[in-house]
Amino acid sequence: MLKKRLFTPGPTSVPEEILLEMAAPIMHHRTDEFISVAKEVFENLRYIFQTKNDVFVIASSGTGAMETSITSFLSKGDKVLVISGGKFGERFKEISLAYQLDVISVDLKWGEKLNPDTIKELLEKNPDIKAVFGTLCETSTGTHFDIQTIGEIVSGYEDTIFVVDAISSLGAVPCLTDDWKIDVVITGSQKAFMLPPGLAFMSVSDKAWKKTETSNLPKYYFNLKKYKKTLAKNDFPFTIPVSLVIGLKKSLNIIKTAGIEKIWEEHRIRAEATKQAMVAAGLKLFSEAPSNAVTAVLLPENVEGDKLIKLLRTKYGISLAGGQDHMKGKIIRISHLGWQDEFDVLTAINAIGVGLTELGYSIDIEKGITAAKKILFATPK
Amino acid sequence: MLKKRLFTPGPTSVPEEILLEMAAPIMHHRTDEFISVAKEVFENLRYIFQTKNDVFVIASSGTGAMETSITSFLSKGDKVLVISGGKFGERFKEISLAYQLDVISVDLKWGEKLNPDTIKELLEKNPDIKAVFGTLCETSTGTHFDIQTIGEIVSGYEDTIFVVDAISSLGAVPCLTDDWKIDVVITGSQKAFMLPPGLAFMSVSDKAWKKTETSNLPKYYFNLKKYKKTLAKNDFPFTIPVSLVIGLKKSLNIIKTAGIEKIWEEHRIRAEATKQAMVAAGLKLFSEAPSNAVTAVLLPENVEGDKLIKLLRTKYGISLAGGQDHMKGKIIRISHLGWQDEFDVLTAINAIGVGLTELGYSIDIEKGITAAKKILFATPK
Repeated sequence: MLKKRLFTPGPTSVPEEILLEMAAPIMHHRTDEFISVAKEVFENLRYIFQTKNDVFVIASSGTGAMETSITSFLSKGDKVLVISGGKFGERFKEISLAYQLDVISVDLKWGEKLNPDTIKELLEKNPDIKAVFGTLCETSTGTHFDIQTIGEIVSGYEDTIFVVDAISSLGAVPCLTDDWKIDVVITGSQKAFMLPPGLAFMSVSDKAWKKTETSNLPKYYFNLKKYKKTLAKNDFPFTIPVSLVIGLKKSLNIIKTAGIEKIWEEHRIRAEATKQAMVAAGLKLFSEAPSNAVTAVLLPENVEGDKLIKLLRTKYGISLAGGQDHMKGKIIRISHLGWQDEFDVLTAINAIGVGLTELGYSIDIEKGITAAKKILFATPK
Repeated sequence: MLKKRLFTPGPTSVPEEILLEMAAPIMHHRTDEFISVAKEVFENLRYIFQTKNDVFVIASSGTGAMETSITSFLSKGDKVLVISGGKFGERFKEISLAYQLDVISVDLKWGEKLNPDTIKELLEKNPDIKAVFGTLCETSTGTHFDIQTIGEIVSGYEDTIFVVDAISSLGAVPCLTDDWKIDVVITGSQKAFMLPPGLAFMSVSDKAWKKTETSNLPKYYFNLKKYKKTLAKNDFPFTIPVSLVIGLKKSLNIIKTAGIEKIWEEHRIRAEATKQAMVAAGLKLFSEAPSNAVTAVLLPENVEGDKLIKLLRTKYGISLAGGQDHMKGKIIRISHLGWQDEFDVLTAINAIGVGLTELGYSIDIEKGITAAKKILFATPK
């Protein structure tokens, strides 16, 4: 019997208890019953975001919220700084250009570590930059960015906001929105929130909110002012995917009950075990600054990544992600997001060993398993 | 035990068999398995839309697709004609103005019937109109618009496209996209499709598609060119709500198996029975041209609509919709959409009788029930 297991960085697996909540009969969205669900959701989102700011809920993929952070705060011709270290950093650039912003971009090699001084210097040279766009975890490369340091730098500029794409990492790795002075944090439902895709979330600081008053970019669905107006009544401006919001309530409860710090630590342990295992088995990590949300592993030159992914998916039901764009076929990406435990990590590592062996590449995966176990079972739960 | 029944014009009830499909473990969206689901969905959408055109799927509420029909086809300053007979016609105007289009609007009284000659004359005077925006069923008033006649008129203008908001009615009432020469038809998942909210669908004719080449409005998420590119591979440009697409596959199967003509006829019968019942019981219909998707009933002056809605919802679990904006408290709206049968119609009518009686308004609902039964059970199934 083929059991299916997702190790993809979104969509991730949804716990059965959430799936069942979402399978309950549809609730109408303009009822007291649903509004009390929404109230709890808006409150608990603040906890996951570690913020006192408003957190908005938009019915779209994460990209819709990225676009909202541009259309709602900026004006035509505004100078913006985009840190681009992969496919999703690139996306901020593309959206900015679509709205005719004046884009300065820091283009890192995929997997390259950012030196925050670069941002410091660029802001000193261009104090008229209106927004800096960064990524907490670049999903396409598994790279972690030092958002805390950049937040500190940007906060020195009164008219510059810091927008962070935390789509694949919020809830998985620490993101202290307020402490780190991040004005806008964006994420989506299908990652560490353990939900299907369909909802995007974004927190907005007062500093960012002020920019909604001057923003002149055309918008309607992605106009945060509409969301602010209804938020006061724990409501949404446009018909919201009610079943996903019901699931979100449950997911936020699970996370809050466990405690967000504990969940970050569990992600850290799963990521660390995976990384150590890969290195012990003789493989190389792709990123210079690996994230705890997703680990990217460089494949040996004679292994075709697409074949490995396909073999594991079709023969064993194990879904890993491959590389994107120019890294297609050259890396595999293992997600640590959401609903996983220690034994899932061992399953992923074993699967990589089995897959590589079947493709004729000799690897000592047992060494990897041993290394992983040391980390996974080092301390009692 | 309080059983909950939705007679709201979206979200509507979702059949258990669809709820259960959507509760299955999450499928990754970049797999052959999911792509074959998407392929079937794209094909069957064409059937529901009665079109040979492409039908696109967007993760947003219906409003997102309305905005897409503006951002993807039009350019700044373009002259457009909006037929506005209620809250949702008004929305096309609002979005057009947000994008600085030059808007001519036909503002009907809520519930008023449109004379298509108005459109004919306006187009004759303004042959430079680039798009005409209409609504198949104006949900806020329960009004049906003669889209077929307007389609014929607009088709005479080579550079003018006809965009129809069929959000609350596609799948419930005839909408012969190709025969009626409608260039763009928009709808959403939470109405006659019997699904939770979260997906919007839109069909696009070649005539409309040509306009994507000249359109200069800024857009990213609502840029149909991105959707066209991925459609060729039965894929989506942004992470799609996979569980809703799984539900959509099932829903389209149910509709196709029954036959769309049969489903239109069932809606017509439910609507007709409700209308006759209301009139027989001494109430008045609100719209001059009632739709078969939703029936709006004018309340007697001494009845507070909000109280009636609240009473039925809290005491009996029956959800009807009230009036919106200036009609708040003055009308009730009964949806005939989706997963309903003859006995549901009798339940809705009886509930209105019970509610009015409890609020001290004397009504002879039995006359209504008798009238409804004559229609509901006139012919064997």
